[in-house]
This record gives sequence, structure tokens and C-alpha cells, in this order.
Amino acid sequence: MTKFGRHDDKTLLDLMTKSSIRALEDAGATEKSVDAVYAASMLAGELNNRVAIGSALADQLALVPAAADRIENGPASGGSAVKNAYCAIACGMYDTVLVTGGEKMRHVPAERITDYIATMTDIDAEYIHGITLPSLAGMLTRIYMEKYGLTEEDLARVAVKNHLNGSKNPYAHIQQPITLEGIYGSPEAQVNNPVIAEPIRMYHCCPVTDGAASVLLCATEKAKEFTDTPIRITGVGQATDRMAVQDRKDPSVLEALRVAAAQAFKMSKTTPRDISFAELHDAFTILEIVESEDAGFFAKGTGHKALRDGITALDGKFPINPSGGLKARGHPVGATGVAQIVELTWQLRGEADKRQVKNAQRGFSCNLGGFANNILAFVLERT
Amino acid sequence: MTKFGRHDDKTLLDLMTKSSIRALEDAGATEKSVDAVYAASMLAGELNNRVAIGSALADQLALVPAAADRIENGPASGGSAVKNAYCAIACGMYDTVLVTGGEKMRHVPAERITDYIATMTDIDAEYIHGITLPSLAGMLTRIYMEKYGLTEEDLARVAVKNHLNGSKNPYAHIQQPITLEGIYGSPEAQVNNPVIAEPIRMYHCCPVTDGAASVLLCATEKAKEFTDTPIRITGVGQATDRMAVQDRKDPSVLEALRVAAAQAFKMSKTTPRDISFAELHDAFTILEIVESEDAGFFAKGTGHKALRDGITALDGKFPINPSGGLKARGHPVGATGVAQIVELTWQLRGEADKRQVKNAQRGFSCNLGGFANNILAFVLERT
Repeated sequence: MTKFGRHDDKTLLDLMTKSSIRALEDAGATEKSVDAVYAASMLAGELNNRVAIGSALADQLALVPAAADRIENGPASGGSAVKNAYCAIACGMYDTVLVTGGEKMRHVPAERITDYIATMTDIDAEYIHGITLPSLAGMLTRIYMEKYGLTEEDLARVAVKNHLNGSKNPYAHIQQPITLEGIYGSPEAQVNNPVIAEPIRMYHCCPVTDGAASVLLCATEKAKEFTDTPIRITGVGQATDRMAVQDRKDPSVLEALRVAAAQAFKMSKTTPRDISFAELHDAFTILEIVESEDAGFFAKGTGHKALRDGITALDGKFPINPSGGLKARGHPVGATGVAQIVELTWQLRGEADKRQVKNAQRGFSCNLGGFANNILAFVLERT
Repeated sequence: MTKFGRHDDKTLLDLMTKSSIRALEDAGATEKSVDAVYAASMLAGELNNRVAIGSALADQLALVPAAADRIENGPASGGSAVKNAYCAIACGMYDTVLVTGGEKMRHVPAERITDYIATMTDIDAEYIHGITLPSLAGMLTRIYMEKYGLTEEDLARVAVKNHLNGSKNPYAHIQQPITLEGIYGSPEAQVNNPVIAEPIRMYHCCPVTDGAASVLLCATEKAKEFTDTPIRITGVGQATDRMAVQDRKDPSVLEALRVAAAQAFKMSKTTPRDISFAELHDAFTILEIVESEDAGFFAKGTGHKALRDGITALDGKFPINPSGGLKARGHPVGATGVAQIVELTWQLRGEADKRQVKNAQRGFSCNLGGFANNILAFVLERT
């Protein structure tokens, strides 16, 4: 990965080149070892004037004539790229594929970013009425509060936990711990934590971030050529849900996650109980709680209780987002799904240093597209 | 396919939905038979405000919870989507995948379109100096004229042939035959055929087109459920070349096509001699000639002679672009690679009516990204 954060002096291609080189170096791979490049980015064209960035990346890395594609699935672009690279290797088309996700967004004014991001909602049923992602997250939060007794403090607890984890991650955008008191304890604290889309406040949202992340995938039998500690992708799932939230049977359920996670668990012959830790898609803190339930780790409506009890803390029984998550590591949208796979890999290799999860045997990640209308789920294991 | 042309009254999603439904109906497929949707589009976000259009298409077609991704590789987006769908089926991830490519461009002023298209050149080495795709095609043409004795009339002969084929294709954007005399025979004719990028004139360029095309891919053993005339994809190839034309060893050679075609022939255990006809990527007429050589159908520098001799005409020994090609069928960029596969399928099934190639046993297509910096090649066969 590159460090996530603000990179005014770098182009999107610079960032993706940098994380790619780090992955290739980590694996000791030469330009001849890579058969294909899968680039993930949501807004490379819109914000960076970069169409077909896969081709540019292959050229920049001297990987020509390797095949190259860009995969775009909103904020789930990274997950989709990993899935497609997995398939291309599994079918024998390629032996080794470099997957690099990246986004450069901070040079664009925040209100324009929110608008670009909102284009992934339903244009006719949502977008044209002014619906944005924070507003959808606000409505989901309100339902959870009424239905399951979630409090605004629970939302903040996700942020406090993930900021603490992020403070131990040198790649995180935000490496500063926060406290409940610091963002709620006084009128001044509340002023510094303004309402974004009631009941969601600033500290319930991920930042806007620049960055890139890469993984080198290869056939199992080739992995030993690159590393003594290969990590296996044993489960892959992906499912869509109705585009517009209003069309879903129950807007408090992430049905696409239920389907995608079930596919990933089935393929890996595991259940949620077999998983040591997870990287979840906390673009808004409410999402970490809901995902922790719909992926199957906690019963519906109890995710916030597990959080209160410290179960999802780094030293808890089931750590969630040891990396700091989207909340603290940051969310360069197209990079996020790949960064999750990077974090699972580091954790499973035992290379996560101060944020290392104890006995990390199997990791789970989920990467959300739209407002949860397209979700990817992965299970990774130590070999 | 939708008819290619101008569709002011339709959105991009409308067009992609329409071609998708036609493919599903052709196969007698229900919403339950589709495991995944691969959407191809180059500029869905930039021109149509449609990020993650795969998700929208799955929703629109009532295919939820099918997986959905968008694949973007410039004008080779369609080919890349077919390749990735092929891999996803070949590895067993899915049984049946709907691939739909689409682009809606004609509502945008032509000079802005040329600018958007130019973003797929090398930004630092080409784009910022004002290089556009027609200018690169003009330079390639000049080299060919000097090196191989190609004339301006040869360029026009491609257009005349492809317009004639297009006049027999009800899906073509331009269904009007033209003659060499009509575009060169008088001063008035030349006025109506102005220079775009010397020596390239208007009739050497494809039009700007709206449209969508779809194919339903499935595992070989499932094909009989959908049709009595399944067509097999037996060869797939993809390769990149240096991004900037100036960095290539020989700018008159499409090295990426040589590599991609060799891969496709090897995989299908065929040689160019085994192929009955081809759909080539004639965004500029010079490209059809160069591709017919670098794909291996004619010796280098002799493509224009085969053209003059009528070998590549519909009733010739090796018909090229029976559909009318990009020149007459039109070039909705993200749709083109899929439309080529559709045409191969219709031809191999013997369903191409007035433009039917005789004894069509095996077809070849190539789909160019950038100015030939990323090329896909396919071999399809009758079963």
C-alpha cells in the first residue's frame, strides 16, 4: 500500500504505481512474472482524466505485453478486481495477476465528491431527489435506533475503536486516537463534531482519502516461488441487492451481504465461527455494526452490544477492522477492497506489528458498492 | 443488439437493458438462469452520470442477487468484459453470465467526445500536446503510404466495402452504400469528405454512435439448455503495448495484436488459415488494413492489396467486417467488442441474412483499446 491520506504531489497513476511496486518487491516478482494487471478505480476518469488506467499501469510498471483491465464497481471496485483476478487464475488463463486499486479524490472540493459518490445511488429514485450516501446512512441509523436500541454513542464507539486501531497502522490516513468524551463530552466537542445527516455526525463518517493498494495473486502451486508465507483466498462471494433502498424488503438488512457471505463461507467450507477477525466496510460507523450481523458474526440487532462489550476491539474475542477500517485508515474508494485483502494478508502472516490480531488463522472481508447494492465477501486463510 | 445510431430518447441504461433483454429472450433465459452481469462501458460515468452501471443493470433486469461488475478498457471494454466473463465461467464461479456493452455519446458535442476519447492516450507524452486518436491514425496512415504504397483510395475502399456490408445490416448505424466516385470523384465530393487529420478524411473515420450489445455466455455443458446452435469461444487473447505510440519499436506494427492473436490461435488450436471471416476494429479505415496483417491473415504490407483484389469483400475468400464494422455499424465504444461477438455468433449460426458469409465455420474478432495499446482477440466456432 501507499500510506493513505492526502497526496497533492502525486497523480493517481503515481499512487497505483507505488503500491504495485511495493507488492512486486514484497513478492520478489520481476516484470516477467506478471501475466495480467487488474486495476480498480471508481472515478479514475471523472476525477483524474484517466480512462483505461489498467493499460497505463501495465506500461508504467514495464509489464507490457501483460493483459490489463480496469474493474469498476463503485466503492466495491477493489473487491470486484480481486474476484475477477481470482477467476482468471483459477481457470488457468493466467498464473500471476497484479491487482491494484487506487483513488485520488482530495484535490476535488468535498461537495463535488459527495455528488460524484451519489451517482452510484439510483439516479431516478434517489439521486435526482438529492439523496446522498450520508443521508442513506442516516436513515439506516434511525431505523437501527428505533428497532434495536442503538445509541449515538454506539456509533461513536466504532469510531473510537477504529481510530485506536488506526493509530497503530502506519498506512492509516488518521493515526490519532479519539475518545467518547472528546467528541461528545462538552458543547465544544459537539461543535467540532457537527451533524452531517441527522443522527450521523462527522465522526461517524470516513474521511475522503487518496491512496492505492496492491496484491499479487497467483496459482496456489506457484505461491512458493514468491513467498514462504502464502495466504490463500479460500472463499469468494458477490451479490447485488435492489439499487434503490426504498425497493428493498427490509432496509435494515444488507441482503446482498447475507448472500455474498454465505457464498464465501460455503466455498471455503467455513462458518462465521471459524473466522478469527474481519475487515468490514465502515464508510459510516453504522455499517460496521450492521455488517457484523449480516455477515453472520453476531445475531441481528446485537452488533452494537458486542461492540459495547469490547468483543470487536483489537484485544477482544473477534477483532473488527484492526487496520482502522475505512473510518481511520481512510477510504480511497477503488483502493479499499484491495486494502482489506492487504490487511488480511499482513494479519494472517503475523506482520501487523502493534495492531496484530492474536492467533489470526482466518480472516473475512466485505466490500460494499452503492449503498450496499453490490457486495463482495472474501475468506482468506493461512496455509 | 439495439440498432446502433442516435438514441436521443433513451438513456444508456435503457439501451443496455434493451440489448440484454434481446439476448435473454434469444436464449429463452429466465432471471433465475443468470448468475452474473458483466457490463462494459468506457464513459458511463463521464457522459451518463452512471457509476457502477453493472449494479443498475442487474436491478433493471430483475436479476438481483446476481453478481455484477463493470469492466472498462477504453474502446476494448467489450472485449475485456467477454474475457472476464469467460474466465468466471471457466473456473466454475458462475454457470451463466450476461455480458452487455453500451455507450451513449451522441448527446455530447463532437469536440468534447474527441477530447474524452483522447484521455486514453498517454497523458504526459501525447494528450497534453494535443494528440487525438484521428491524429495518431493519420500518422500511422502516412507511414503505411510511404512504406507499403498504400493510397488514399485504399483507405476509402475499406469504407466503401464496409458501407456496402452495413447496408445489409439492420442494426448498423449507417446503412447507406457509398462509392469511390461519390467521395472522391469531384471537387464537390471532396468538400463533403473533408480532411480530419491529413491524410485521413471523414469517410476514413467511424461515426460517433449510441448503442448496446449483449451476449449470454455459459458453460459448454449448459449451452444446450438455451439453444440448438451454441457457438463456442475457443480462443481468447489479450496483450498490451507501450502506452505512447512514440515508445514503440515500430509504430507501423500492432505488436499487442500479434501477441493477442497468437494467444487466441494457440488456445483454439487454429491458425489464421482456419478462420472463415473476421470482425476487425476499423475505428479508422487504416486500422482494418493493418489489423488484417498483424492478426496473421495477410503478409505485412499486403493488406491493402487483398482489399483491392476483393478478397475481404463479403463474397471474397476472406470477408472482413461483414457487419459493416465500426465504420458503418458504428462505434458505441464500450459496446463494440460485444457487438463483434454478436456478429460472429449470427454469422456462425447462419442467421446473418443478406450479409451472410458463406461456409462460416470459424470467426475471429479483435477489439482495440487506446491507440492499440491494449488489444483483445477471440476465435469463435460452430459446434
